[in-house]
Amino acid sequence: MENKKLIEFNKILSKHAPPFRDRAELERGKYDFAIAYPDPGSLPLDGLLAALKDGLSDEGQDLALYPDVQGYAPLREYVSYKLKRDRAMTVDPEQVVLGDGSSQHISTIIDLLIDNGDAVITEDFCYSNSLTKLRISGADIHGVRCDKSGMKPDNLEMVIADLVAQDKRPKLIYTIPTFQNPQGWTMTLERRKALLDIASFYEIPILEDDCYVDLRFEGDNVPAIHSLDLTGQVMYVGSFSKTIAPGLRMGYFVGPEEIIGRFRMVRKISGSGVNEFAALAIHRYAMSGLDDHVEQLLKIQRDRRDTMIATLGETFGSNAKWSTPEGGLYLWLQMPESVDLNEVTKEALEAGVGYQPGTMFAADAGSGQNYARLCFGYNSSEEISKGIEVLSDLFSQKGFF
Amino acid sequence: MENKKLIEFNKILSKHAPPFRDRAELERGKYDFAIAYPDPGSLPLDGLLAALKDGLSDEGQDLALYPDVQGYAPLREYVSYKLKRDRAMTVDPEQVVLGDGSSQHISTIIDLLIDNGDAVITEDFCYSNSLTKLRISGADIHGVRCDKSGMKPDNLEMVIADLVAQDKRPKLIYTIPTFQNPQGWTMTLERRKALLDIASFYEIPILEDDCYVDLRFEGDNVPAIHSLDLTGQVMYVGSFSKTIAPGLRMGYFVGPEEIIGRFRMVRKISGSGVNEFAALAIHRYAMSGLDDHVEQLLKIQRDRRDTMIATLGETFGSNAKWSTPEGGLYLWLQMPESVDLNEVTKEALEAGVGYQPGTMFAADAGSGQNYARLCFGYNSSEEISKGIEVLSDLFSQKGFF
Repeated sequence: MENKKLIEFNKILSKHAPPFRDRAELERGKYDFAIAYPDPGSLPLDGLLAALKDGLSDEGQDLALYPDVQGYAPLREYVSYKLKRDRAMTVDPEQVVLGDGSSQHISTIIDLLIDNGDAVITEDFCYSNSLTKLRISGADIHGVRCDKSGMKPDNLEMVIADLVAQDKRPKLIYTIPTFQNPQGWTMTLERRKALLDIASFYEIPILEDDCYVDLRFEGDNVPAIHSLDLTGQVMYVGSFSKTIAPGLRMGYFVGPEEIIGRFRMVRKISGSGVNEFAALAIHRYAMSGLDDHVEQLLKIQRDRRDTMIATLGETFGSNAKWSTPEGGLYLWLQMPESVDLNEVTKEALEAGVGYQPGTMFAADAGSGQNYARLCFGYNSSEEISKGIEVLSDLFSQKGFF
Repeated sequence: MENKKLIEFNKILSKHAPPFRDRAELERGKYDFAIAYPDPGSLPLDGLLAALKDGLSDEGQDLALYPDVQGYAPLREYVSYKLKRDRAMTVDPEQVVLGDGSSQHISTIIDLLIDNGDAVITEDFCYSNSLTKLRISGADIHGVRCDKSGMKPDNLEMVIADLVAQDKRPKLIYTIPTFQNPQGWTMTLERRKALLDIASFYEIPILEDDCYVDLRFEGDNVPAIHSLDLTGQVMYVGSFSKTIAPGLRMGYFVGPEEIIGRFRMVRKISGSGVNEFAALAIHRYAMSGLDDHVEQLLKIQRDRRDTMIATLGETFGSNAKWSTPEGGLYLWLQMPESVDLNEVTKEALEAGVGYQPGTMFAADAGSGQNYARLCFGYNSSEEISKGIEVLSDLFSQKGFF
């Protein structure tokens, strides 16, 4: 019984297997404006270690057990408390599911709701990982036009009404209302209410991605869409990635029991709950040092935003426009329409500057060639200043201005 | 535009959404023979904390970055080294993907390969979470008869040949060859070779679930099926859950590049790699104290197995049979055919004893009512002895003997 033929795995994949992804290492610039990282120098490593020590001393033996499918209960209680305090949301800890950052939750929701061909509403430019997941799921993505106040309600309603008229009622509205990724604006209260009214009228659930909300360094807090909802149609994700560290992979989902029950099953059969070791550390740290840490972090990040904007003013001047976000980790650069920033991404990286071109965030997968997202979380102010100068020199050489 | 109608989420779920799972807390017995936990008292908490301290001191600032989609590279290198040392497997670290225990990997492989109706081969009784995931994916599960040496090759070939004749070539053979869960046997070398030959002839990939292999406390090591494979058809999962702790959620997958590339995409869009905080601790600990820890652990677990078997001999005597595993965390209790252990599971729990009835592990979802898996990892020898006595008393009251 000899055969020894190599199995061709690509020929036996399931119909819903995602596409192949190359190993390709992420190339990072010295001036890394590409990814929305927090400041590495101010990570609360000592605080986390001390918090973990406390946690292990109190209940370390419970690491012998498989974690709760919704994640460590005391951390879910903290999330419930925090959402009440910061977002005016009334959420029972039983409605909270912990997971690997917010991405894992967004991915799960898309799996739970979206079949091939289902219509989904997003902002015209939004988080690229969510778009990738939607595309792999076969979603028919419709980007709604936005201005500095968020999604434009008239456009939103037109897009939905069109789809409903074609018997393609959208399955989901995905929005990042606060320090929108990548555009940087925050949706106004009025717009949030309008969005909720439209979604409610057409009976479309909303997934509110609020993962940057804790990073407000100026301006007034705007209530979560979830807090304004009377119909139970808003699901919500948040994260500790931006306030503690991405490497701890900890985010939270809030939603209706009908959806949470599916999350439980997904967790039960694919990993049995979130990392309890990290959860113990985050919980103890959140109960002690987190608020002070975020306060310090925001000072640093405001300075960096200010530096980036000041240097853009000095070097790009009237040749470009950019958003001035009241928080978050990035701004949205707009070059003249004739400019294609995709073309120079590689050259910029060779010169030391990483950024993500606008097309990466385009709901229609093609627009935005003259836009880029510039993150200011990772580098020092001095480096940011230098990096923007390098970028300006390159763009000038390229004849962009 | 007032409506305020509640969205009925159960009516808008995707076709592939899993069933609802109740919140129901896991009820645990004082004598908890239900779950394959390691000993809580000997978890290496101090070692992990010291290891994490080292890791954070060396490269804690990298927690500001999103982890590698395949997981922390030094830990993948350690896994490669360990698999060579312990399992004679030649595996490049680039072929390793870290994840939340082994379950997450098993779940991903099932997602990547199985469409509704696809045939899958398993052992007649095997890990319940894998069966649940297979059922949710619509797999047509065929359990192969096993004896104390593993799957019976003649039955395996008959089942496959039957399916192939119906043009239903199985997509996957899932096996737990070492300290089989729940049966406790270890597949002999001869049987491993026979399995590989049959799978190779019919060009069916194998998923080798080796997550208990590090827990051998007597007898000789049997080579991994993966190490015998010349055709690249064997995928492999292992775990640190049983040697360090389940709460750290860390396991590893080894497979061909065509499959790894899909794992990368799954990870990219759903959580961006495994928890780096836990990975740092596990890596430093694996490089220092793990081997000594496992040696200590095995002494404890052998004692507990011996106690459980001795007490079964004293109390159940000739009224039952049980496996004598050379490692792992459980044995397989067989009562006379007329006995239905499902019926008394609840009563046993009220009396303080948790166990999982055989039907939970049945590939055909019905057999095994007179079997139960009894885990001996969690309780002390004294508790194990007492718990088996309680169970024996209950079974005797029930007229089982």
